[in-house]
Amino acid sequence: MNSDGSLGAPNTLYASGLEHKMGIHGNSTCVMVFEGALGELVGEPHQGLRAMFTMMNQARLGVGVQGLGVSEIAYQNALAYAKDRLQSRALSGAKSPEKAADPILVHGDVRRMLLSQKAFNEGARALVGQQALWLDEAERHTDPAKAKVASQLAALFTPIVKGFITNRGFNACVDAQQVFGGHGYIHEWGMEQFVRDCRIALIYEGTNGIQALDLVGRKLLSDRGAAMLQWSALVTEFIQSHSTNAAMQPYVSGLTDCAGDLQKASGYLASQAVTNPDIIGAASMAYLELFGVTALAWMWARSAAVALAALEQGTEETAFYQAKLKTADFYMAYWAVQGRSLRKQIEQSSELLTSLDESIF
Amino acid sequence: MNSDGSLGAPNTLYASGLEHKMGIHGNSTCVMVFEGALGELVGEPHQGLRAMFTMMNQARLGVGVQGLGVSEIAYQNALAYAKDRLQSRALSGAKSPEKAADPILVHGDVRRMLLSQKAFNEGARALVGQQALWLDEAERHTDPAKAKVASQLAALFTPIVKGFITNRGFNACVDAQQVFGGHGYIHEWGMEQFVRDCRIALIYEGTNGIQALDLVGRKLLSDRGAAMLQWSALVTEFIQSHSTNAAMQPYVSGLTDCAGDLQKASGYLASQAVTNPDIIGAASMAYLELFGVTALAWMWARSAAVALAALEQGTEETAFYQAKLKTADFYMAYWAVQGRSLRKQIEQSSELLTSLDESIF
Repeated sequence: MNSDGSLGAPNTLYASGLEHKMGIHGNSTCVMVFEGALGELVGEPHQGLRAMFTMMNQARLGVGVQGLGVSEIAYQNALAYAKDRLQSRALSGAKSPEKAADPILVHGDVRRMLLSQKAFNEGARALVGQQALWLDEAERHTDPAKAKVASQLAALFTPIVKGFITNRGFNACVDAQQVFGGHGYIHEWGMEQFVRDCRIALIYEGTNGIQALDLVGRKLLSDRGAAMLQWSALVTEFIQSHSTNAAMQPYVSGLTDCAGDLQKASGYLASQAVTNPDIIGAASMAYLELFGVTALAWMWARSAAVALAALEQGTEETAFYQAKLKTADFYMAYWAVQGRSLRKQIEQSSELLTSLDESIF
Repeated sequence: MNSDGSLGAPNTLYASGLEHKMGIHGNSTCVMVFEGALGELVGEPHQGLRAMFTMMNQARLGVGVQGLGVSEIAYQNALAYAKDRLQSRALSGAKSPEKAADPILVHGDVRRMLLSQKAFNEGARALVGQQALWLDEAERHTDPAKAKVASQLAALFTPIVKGFITNRGFNACVDAQQVFGGHGYIHEWGMEQFVRDCRIALIYEGTNGIQALDLVGRKLLSDRGAAMLQWSALVTEFIQSHSTNAAMQPYVSGLTDCAGDLQKASGYLASQAVTNPDIIGAASMAYLELFGVTALAWMWARSAAVALAALEQGTEETAFYQAKLKTADFYMAYWAVQGRSLRKQIEQSSELLTSLDESIF
């Protein structure tokens, strides 16, 4: 359009082809050609990257929730299949002797895959709720000091919501597909599509490697670790306020172990960053994983506290809260125990990775 | 064909449709219909399962090598891309100032993904070589006692070659795809096909859950653990024979830690199997993973011993052996450290998994 509002010559941009992708086939991404095209400046000169990041931070949270959403629907499908599909007998003897075989939900490894998905999905859903609350507080809290803290925490957790939830959400989709056995590999059952669709979430809006760099380089180490100190204070306060409650011990203990490993790993990175900045990159993914495992341990310990209080006070949702406690037990026994190995990876492999000559690979 | 050799009526079996699969599209698996078809008995009555397992044990080894093969070609592609693709600068400053940006191989997280793949591929390749040697010895060794031991070890390691190598080979393909960023998601780059093709290897010829059950239920616990005792003796002998060599300490130490965790996990399973057989299933996958991580620690410690000896005696392949040592260092620092968490998963989550009511899920 010309400056007087009349119709001008067509702009020369065009789509030269559709991209053939692994998944998200409802999304028709194209190769765009801009040769000789006219562009309009949006906003002020040299402020484009900042404007882009306003959009990008929202998009990263959306991608994290995408990873969680696919993981949840994959779980629901896998659970329904595991209750329906009859194959073999429980190792301890038939559980459904009236049927030709037991439903595969009786098998320990099927239970492991399903409960791992459930523990991840519900923990991650709670974390996304916490993130949404921080975003609201950052924008609307009447106390400016509290709004600022909420803003710092939301920034700290953005790469966790994007990177950790999509890393582990993808793994959960692969496990859900595995529950289906050979059917999981066949298109008409729908599970392989969840895996293909979920895979993009680890890549777009900044690969998860970029999220990990953002977490360590920009969020952990900037502003003298102010955001991390804010979160550590919340975790410490929670641990102290429940330390004398015997029923809370498994959850307090699991959270304390993770938080201790995370604190030591943070200290290691802070001490190395000045002399060998490349270590930040080498350690960043294991650090993001350790941070995420600890964050979900925090959410599960808080969920357990709520469940115990509800059961003590009396509730009509007994089964719901008891399931929360069992799932929290499993999170601590299966997920939280990964923290120590992640810390060892950070401390033992990072310097080596940065020192290698290219010819080693 | 009739019994006199003349042509009879056509048999009524037919393919009712092609299966639309996630990958391996060169493999035209069909839905077969056998309604009213005539079958021929192959071999003796009631010996079919045994005959099938002769084929199946070979097939499982083939599938393990398939997982390794796809992982290796995915690595070679990812490495070439990481050397070629220019993006951003090293955190410590430009490594290729004459270029518009540094090749992404300078970034710590890209190095981590690549070296993790390399450490897995080369360790798994060594293990497959060991397995092939045992199979040859089982068939051809002139000492019947040694042939029997080799046969026991080959049987013990069959679910490791199939289950562990395809589990981790698939993860390696996903990492190789990740090195490509957005290009990894586009079909024409070929990486997403490696992921789709590799995915079947965790499913067919017995899902990896079945491999894990075979490992614990049939291989570990049968014959009073005879095969496991044979392997433990080999590992202990190796550790003792290198315990006074200072240069071997990182490798001996990593292997000792893994082997200790594996031994404790084996003891836990042996003690639980009688009173609560379902625990075998619940613990089996973490046990397979711990076993595999330990097996590759054994191969890497042995590789390091060979490399150190070659470098000491003098060799024209200095770079090759030094790369082996660096990769062995990384294996111990990044892979072997996973052993402790896997043992904790086995000891802490298995009983819980078997005790849960179906309504919890």
